[in-house]
Amino acid sequence: MKPIRSFLFIPGNKASWIEKSVTSGADALILDLEDSVPPSEKATARSIVASKIAWLAEKRQRVYVRINRSPYLYDYEDLMAVTKPGLEGIGISKPNGCEDVDTASSMIAEAEMRNGLPIGGIKIMPLLETARALQFAYEIACRPRVPAIVGATARNADVARSLGYIWSADGRESLYFKSRVVMAARAAGKYPIGGLWQQVHDLEGLAESSRRDRALGMSGELVLHPTNVPIVNKTYTPSPEDVAYYQGMIDALEAAETAGRASVVYEGEHVDIAHVKTAREVIELARSLESALN
Amino acid sequence: MKPIRSFLFIPGNKASWIEKSVTSGADALILDLEDSVPPSEKATARSIVASKIAWLAEKRQRVYVRINRSPYLYDYEDLMAVTKPGLEGIGISKPNGCEDVDTASSMIAEAEMRNGLPIGGIKIMPLLETARALQFAYEIACRPRVPAIVGATARNADVARSLGYIWSADGRESLYFKSRVVMAARAAGKYPIGGLWQQVHDLEGLAESSRRDRALGMSGELVLHPTNVPIVNKTYTPSPEDVAYYQGMIDALEAAETAGRASVVYEGEHVDIAHVKTAREVIELARSLESALN
Amino acid sequence: MKPIRSFLFIPGNKASWIEKSVTSGADALILDLEDSVPPSEKATARSIVASKIAWLAEKRQRVYVRINRSPYLYDYEDLMAVTKPGLEGIGISKPNGCEDVDTASSMIAEAEMRNGLPIGGIKIMPLLETARALQFAYEIACRPRVPAIVGATARNADVARSLGYIWSADGRESLYFKSRVVMAARAAGKYPIGGLWQQVHDLEGLAESSRRDRALGMSGELVLHPTNVPIVNKTYTPSPEDVAYYQGMIDALEAAETAGRASVVYEGEHVDIAHVKTAREVIELARSLESALN
Amino acid sequence: MKPIRSFLFIPGNKASWIEKSVTSGADALILDLEDSVPPSEKATARSIVASKIAWLAEKRQRVYVRINRSPYLYDYEDLMAVTKPGLEGIGISKPNGCEDVDTASSMIAEAEMRNGLPIGGIKIMPLLETARALQFAYEIACRPRVPAIVGATARNADVARSLGYIWSADGRESLYFKSRVVMAARAAGKYPIGGLWQQVHDLEGLAESSRRDRALGMSGELVLHPTNVPIVNKTYTPSPEDVAYYQGMIDALEAAETAGRASVVYEGEHVDIAHVKTAREVIELARSLESALN
Amino acid sequence: MKPIRSFLFIPGNKASWIEKSVTSGADALILDLEDSVPPSEKATARSIVASKIAWLAEKRQRVYVRINRSPYLYDYEDLMAVTKPGLEGIGISKPNGCEDVDTASSMIAEAEMRNGLPIGGIKIMPLLETARALQFAYEIACRPRVPAIVGATARNADVARSLGYIWSADGRESLYFKSRVVMAARAAGKYPIGGLWQQVHDLEGLAESSRRDRALGMSGELVLHPTNVPIVNKTYTPSPEDVAYYQGMIDALEAAETAGRASVVYEGEHVDIAHVKTAREVIELARSLESALN
Amino acid sequence: MKPIRSFLFIPGNKASWIEKSVTSGADALILDLEDSVPPSEKATARSIVASKIAWLAEKRQRVYVRINRSPYLYDYEDLMAVTKPGLEGIGISKPNGCEDVDTASSMIAEAEMRNGLPIGGIKIMPLLETARALQFAYEIACRPRVPAIVGATARNADVARSLGYIWSADGRESLYFKSRVVMAARAAGKYPIGGLWQQVHDLEGLAESSRRDRALGMSGELVLHPTNVPIVNKTYTPSPEDVAYYQGMIDALEAAETAGRASVVYEGEHVDIAHVKTAREVIELARSLESALN
Repeated sequence: MKPIRSFLFIPGNKASWIEKSVTSGADALILDLEDSVPPSEKATARSIVASKIAWLAEKRQRVYVRINRSPYLYDYEDLMAVTKPGLEGIGISKPNGCEDVDTASSMIAEAEMRNGLPIGGIKIMPLLETARALQFAYEIACRPRVPAIVGATARNADVARSLGYIWSADGRESLYFKSRVVMAARAAGKYPIGGLWQQVHDLEGLAESSRRDRALGMSGELVLHPTNVPIVNKTYTPSPEDVAYYQGMIDALEAAETAGRASVVYEGEHVDIAHVKTAREVIELARSLESALN
Repeated sequence: MKPIRSFLFIPGNKASWIEKSVTSGADALILDLEDSVPPSEKATARSIVASKIAWLAEKRQRVYVRINRSPYLYDYEDLMAVTKPGLEGIGISKPNGCEDVDTASSMIAEAEMRNGLPIGGIKIMPLLETARALQFAYEIACRPRVPAIVGATARNADVARSLGYIWSADGRESLYFKSRVVMAARAAGKYPIGGLWQQVHDLEGLAESSRRDRALGMSGELVLHPTNVPIVNKTYTPSPEDVAYYQGMIDALEAAETAGRASVVYEGEHVDIAHVKTAREVIELARSLESALN
Repeated sequence: MKPIRSFLFIPGNKASWIEKSVTSGADALILDLEDSVPPSEKATARSIVASKIAWLAEKRQRVYVRINRSPYLYDYEDLMAVTKPGLEGIGISKPNGCEDVDTASSMIAEAEMRNGLPIGGIKIMPLLETARALQFAYEIACRPRVPAIVGATARNADVARSLGYIWSADGRESLYFKSRVVMAARAAGKYPIGGLWQQVHDLEGLAESSRRDRALGMSGELVLHPTNVPIVNKTYTPSPEDVAYYQGMIDALEAAETAGRASVVYEGEHVDIAHVKTAREVIELARSLESALN
Repeated sequence: MKPIRSFLFIPGNKASWIEKSVTSGADALILDLEDSVPPSEKATARSIVASKIAWLAEKRQRVYVRINRSPYLYDYEDLMAVTKPGLEGIGISKPNGCEDVDTASSMIAEAEMRNGLPIGGIKIMPLLETARALQFAYEIACRPRVPAIVGATARNADVARSLGYIWSADGRESLYFKSRVVMAARAAGKYPIGGLWQQVHDLEGLAESSRRDRALGMSGELVLHPTNVPIVNKTYTPSPEDVAYYQGMIDALEAAETAGRASVVYEGEHVDIAHVKTAREVIELARSLESALN
Repeated sequence: MKPIRSFLFIPGNKASWIEKSVTSGADALILDLEDSVPPSEKATARSIVASKIAWLAEKRQRVYVRINRSPYLYDYEDLMAVTKPGLEGIGISKPNGCEDVDTASSMIAEAEMRNGLPIGGIKIMPLLETARALQFAYEIACRPRVPAIVGATARNADVARSLGYIWSADGRESLYFKSRVVMAARAAGKYPIGGLWQQVHDLEGLAESSRRDRALGMSGELVLHPTNVPIVNKTYTPSPEDVAYYQGMIDALEAAETAGRASVVYEGEHVDIAHVKTAREVIELARSLESALN
Repeated sequence: MKPIRSFLFIPGNKASWIEKSVTSGADALILDLEDSVPPSEKATARSIVASKIAWLAEKRQRVYVRINRSPYLYDYEDLMAVTKPGLEGIGISKPNGCEDVDTASSMIAEAEMRNGLPIGGIKIMPLLETARALQFAYEIACRPRVPAIVGATARNADVARSLGYIWSADGRESLYFKSRVVMAARAAGKYPIGGLWQQVHDLEGLAESSRRDRALGMSGELVLHPTNVPIVNKTYTPSPEDVAYYQGMIDALEAAETAGRASVVYEGEHVDIAHVKTAREVIELARSLESALN
């Protein structure tokens, strides 16, 4: 799967917001049927979302839907309604562990069969919002339908309540579980997704928070507001300075190899083939993002 | 089990200290038969502790006893002597892993049977003081007799020696294992217990250390001196300002819901039903602690 | 196994560097056949390294060899060539998990058998450079041939690429996995090895980086340049001030015990038998390192 | 849970058969919505079954319902319809492993919540009809909702197809998996259920088949026809001769103990307290079945 | 993978036997480099086998090679020599558990890479000839390269020595492990392979032995002599009588369904859709084997 | 550990029986403190047994003691009394799983320490008499103190009650768990021990029962009466006919190898190096038992 830098949440009951979101620049949308929809509009939201998927796919907009759950089960009717051509995946909130992901996977297979889709095509993006899901992050990340796991933090939100921590700007209290999500995802060959900045109008705070997640190894993050998308996209895109730095590294090692050496000191640091592999990956990522824009 | 903010250690050979401790305000006492008792007073301590349990229970003071262990086994005679009506649990130090907790559990069942107590009633509070116990923190936390696990740090003490780290005030070296204990406990539905402040006369240092543990998600901590109890209790009790803040949040979302919205920006942050669940838990905790005092 | 404070890498194709390295003071050498050797000199390096092992062993220099690997297998010819009397162990880079360590172990057993060495004598030191190896750090550390596991970090190198993080001087991005390696190794009764400082000419930076790894609980680290050896050795050797501090602690508790107490406040901190066990270990380590020098 | 000697299957679309079944003497009924109901009558069967549960419960008839499944999921509508007061449990066919049992358990919890039943009260009886379910028989038996697991065999039916065996009267081909189901169930403290005799008019064959299952350790079995119920009940009820034999054993050991011995030769065999525990269990079972009849 | 009824072993040093074997009717050949080749001819056998693979593939003969192993490792040179286009898989003898299968898989990947074959294409057929391999039969069967596992028995051969049993014609001593191999293979979606009849000239004994393995659920077996091939093939091919019986069953249930029933008594037994699924599988197998012949 | 063909039980309260037992020919004695001792003589038995161990060891009689257990714990006082020089191991009855074996191991280490024995020297022989212990037979067999596991069956005894089976002479009901114990023990490199014949005066029945266990792969068995010892010893000792047969096989293959072949038909069966390894093991066993007698 191609990486996703920005997942933009949109309340499922807001048809016009969904339509406008295709211009947001978000790599993927998450049409939300859950906490951002008032109870009285759940049914409306479900049918709005179901009706918009094909249109969004036509616009080449990648789309996920976050479904509701009771204390015991993900919402069967939600799943039946939105498992349609054009949907990339389902976002599931607050799984209690691998069992919930497996159950969701079986329910989605049922929906795929009933709705005539190929079995196994719809992805699951689990939001690891309970302590137990975080404890089993690696096992969850290994599930075949799961291309990415989310380790997000926000003051007073679900993860904070489940772990009992107190949110801070420097994130000392979330360093462990965010790092754990990064390692679990990477170990399983999947993407680690960070966030979640809920002071949506503080864009400098967002940029700083986003840089911190990127530095830990996240490959993208959840976003609550369209204005936040470009800032997040920028964080997860190699800058021209990055590209120049890494190209220089490649050139330096090539020169060294011509001279019969396997390593070189480049900008003050020992560099060998291991570093050049990293350099090539960064440049390749920069190129693929650029071509996606054109 | 009701949460315990402060576990106060008292050397088991000090009968008068035990008696005075009921006025300390500690949520629970740990009568110690182990490292705070000199070898020559082990037998005395055992009989003092055994004789005080009923009296403490009568005073409605929750009581744990920390027993001795050889390199191979927890102390059988200690267990037989103190497993009596009124005891809430046994503190076990330096388990090497789940096997030691299981063995302790079997020994306690034997003591319960021999002493006429219901089987399974006495709890085990493991002090995760070896690297291997910390590695298996989650598995230990899942054991049925275990209501809480302890992830404490102190300069030069058992955990420091087992992991080989050097203690610092900012706790960089213990962030991983304390966070691990928080997640393991919460994932198993148990309480994570922090501490341990051994500069017992530096109360400001204690307050700071305690705030840091609380911020990570600890629900209480070990305490070495009666003067330390009120400071720790305060850390783990929601303040009136907290209660007001969260009540405001609840009110704000209710207003938003009346207006047909599922979220609102409250004091600069996106807030929805997820946050309000947290708010309700904090207010509920504040009320239950208040009523416990009256 | 005796602890190793400094593992000095030497490119295997540099015969004279290998010879000079015995005066470096490194506790162990790692003769490298992998990334520090240019492709065109791989065969030469293999025979140089094979020819130097006995000579180094005669000089009582502990020796490891890092072998090559393809995407699928460690290099069979490397192993057959260097598994010789005098070799202490094989360094294996980028294992993908336990399976790779088990496979390496079987291949080494084959080499031991073919080359007439006792089966099981050659050690394996895995460099945990992939996310999956770090995820399974404990399981890897439990393997019988493994006396130590390496959790090293360096800007743009293999671990950074596998986890996707961005290296920083303060190491926020590597705190999780370094702490994880420390706990995993200690839980398995093995040594955790840190590093890797690649700004080889910045000796102050090295000293700071080394102190940080030591504080986390590392017992030694990888070193890229002979000038870095003494600095690293110093970090992992108790200083005379340390020895004096701990001797004072032992004396203070002994005095307390004579007075019938099991604890004492020493330099402002509660201290009991747990701390004195640590004190004795530090003093014992200092003595063993001293005697090794004489 | 009290043991069930006979589980009688009744097609869910046969209202009159259901009514008559209360006189069959079966310890429990399994109202079937699955393979014994023609596709065209599935909806009818569901509503007949849903309507009969309360009436059967009033007659003190224990009731299970076997629901349908697609290749991916148990039937959600079946579950919602039949999870009603009076239902003891759900029979699930052809689970592919623990995941299917966990998913069924979550779906039943949802049905309990929606239908106002206490959560966790409805049991699950899995029919281990796939090779993978049999491979994981113990893990399935450990699930909390599961009071019994079924290891049944029949010529050409689901288990035979999944394992690929050829049914025979002496059951050489099913000895392994039936014994495995017995051990798995007993190890988990649950009941092993055998059967399934599909030559329903050959009552002698049934008696022999039933005796063989009982001898392996089964505690009851599935039954396809009301005429088969008394034969099966008899097999799983201790006979008067059994009771006399075991009472004699108890008396013999008591006499020996009076004479200061701990064992005795009773009817040619060494007998001690271990055997007398068995004797007491058999007599207790005989009494409880008798009192259930009166 | 298509099922294989007969795997015919041929000593790798017998070039002419290999050539003749294409007329044997064996579904697959196993060219043996191991126990059927005298030590002095190991090198010759390796090159003969390597030279025949392409020719056999041209004749559309499926080919496996059984390689040698030391106590520690499968033979690297054997693997490099025979991993060539036309080879279907490698037979590995006496694995000690999953680790050996994983190691073999890595070595084969190396051979595939060096010899220009697609990675992962060559299969592994493990002969479960040690007690530990049988203990982990399911885990071995789950490995991706493994399409089939072998649970064979023979008087005094490797399995008998490892488990310590005494071979008998009725196979009481091998019933457990053969049944275990059947369940493990089927649970993993793989083929269970039986045998091994070493009284090669007693063809009646072979027919009986073969029927017993087939009845347990084996899908094919190992064969030591070309004369044994047709007998084994016949055992694992549905007979015309089988086909007629199952076609009658299908017809009977169709008639019942037309009459509004979901089950019928066919030749004295209760039969429903479950049995008809089996009937269809048997008829489909018969057809596919027939068309393979034409 | 050398194999033990016969373990003879002797009630611990019978001092004279213990003394006479050294002439029984039993490879090892099990002095019983448990079910063969009347409650009123438990204390006496403990001191008799404790007092006889050294004397038996002097006579070079291998000795085990079976200790008592409550529902929760093995008997601490028993262990402290009998863990003395000369004791080979402790027999533990009715473990509920690995936890009980681990607990017994810790208790024995404590007893070793208190009684001045080297830690880890005393063995544990678990009697797998509960369904759960049989379910985890392999995991139990892997424990380091365990040299052998017991899978015994007897009419109405502990295993029969736990699994719920009905004993028969042909042992259909115990074939699964006896085979399971053989595989588990052999897979862990330990000895499988069978038995238990409680019709102690029916020596022909014993011989038949013993042959059946031997054929399954057991290496010895439990014995209740001294007259049963020679019969059991004979079963587990290769006969002169066996030795002659296997020597003939070795000779035949050697002749074949001289003639350039790797296999031969010996007494009607294909035989190769695999069979000759078995032949050598049998002859070696015969020799070691013979030399033990002289």
